[in-house]
Amino acid sequence: MPVRLDHLGIYVEDLDKALAFYCGVLGLDRPEVEDKPEHRMRIARVRLGDVDLELIEAAVEDTMLRHMPYRGPGLYHIGVRVDSTDTEIERLRAAGVPLLDETPREGDRMRVAFLHPAAAGGVMIELVQRLSAAHKRS
Amino acid sequence: MPVRLDHLGIYVEDLDKALAFYCGVLGLDRPEVEDKPEHRMRIARVRLGDVDLELIEAAVEDTMLRHMPYRGPGLYHIGVRVDSTDTEIERLRAAGVPLLDETPREGDRMRVAFLHPAAAGGVMIELVQRLSAAHKRS
Repeated sequence: MPVRLDHLGIYVEDLDKALAFYCGVLGLDRPEVEDKPEHRMRIARVRLGDVDLELIEAAVEDTMLRHMPYRGPGLYHIGVRVDSTDTEIERLRAAGVPLLDETPREGDRMRVAFLHPAAAGGVMIELVQRLSAAHKRS
Repeated sequence: MPVRLDHLGIYVEDLDKALAFYCGVLGLDRPEVEDKPEHRMRIARVRLGDVDLELIEAAVEDTMLRHMPYRGPGLYHIGVRVDSTDTEIERLRAAGVPLLDETPREGDRMRVAFLHPAAAGGVMIELVQRLSAAHKRS
């Protein structure tokens, strides 16, 4: 059962400009920028209290990004921490909740799955299961 | 200086349907629904860990709602807790940050102000100063 917020996904047009605001103006700690040229994507995770603001600059035409913003830059999704993505997918499917991912995707030490925004009043929810290094699939 | 997330604003078309998902399916605690007929608005705050999901059903033509969604239902704003809304407005204005509220608005035991989404990579940020009952203006 999801019990806490994991992160907020924010799709930005210009990551450097966004960091200038969140770090330079708001005063949040400046994070490392993660470059994923294979996905034409740059990501920076800015810590706001105990929640990450995941700032994503991306080439939207990339097929990896089929769930990417359909509404332009801004708040994109809510990441909700769960114990098991598989279990939650199973449970939600049984409850008739529309899913974007029928099977979890493997991320960096996490297993995630997106629900369809229609499920949650227009909000895209990402189930996030954090994995220890030992559990990471190759 | 903002240090933590206060709440997430989510604009929904149908509050009862949204509660059926967040509480009935996701299993979050069912909150009281706050009816504000004078603003043609209903609000319910669903607790997700230590952050509120503020579900807002509203008549968008109401003038109270000039900052309401320009993008349809979904994630609407991030509420960031600050010590003093006045101080932050002053500081941000001096930094050239575009503001929607030049002076704070009084809410229910809080003093809030919205920044323009252009300031923060498309995200509408609400500065939230929580007030004790004693500080509440009439």
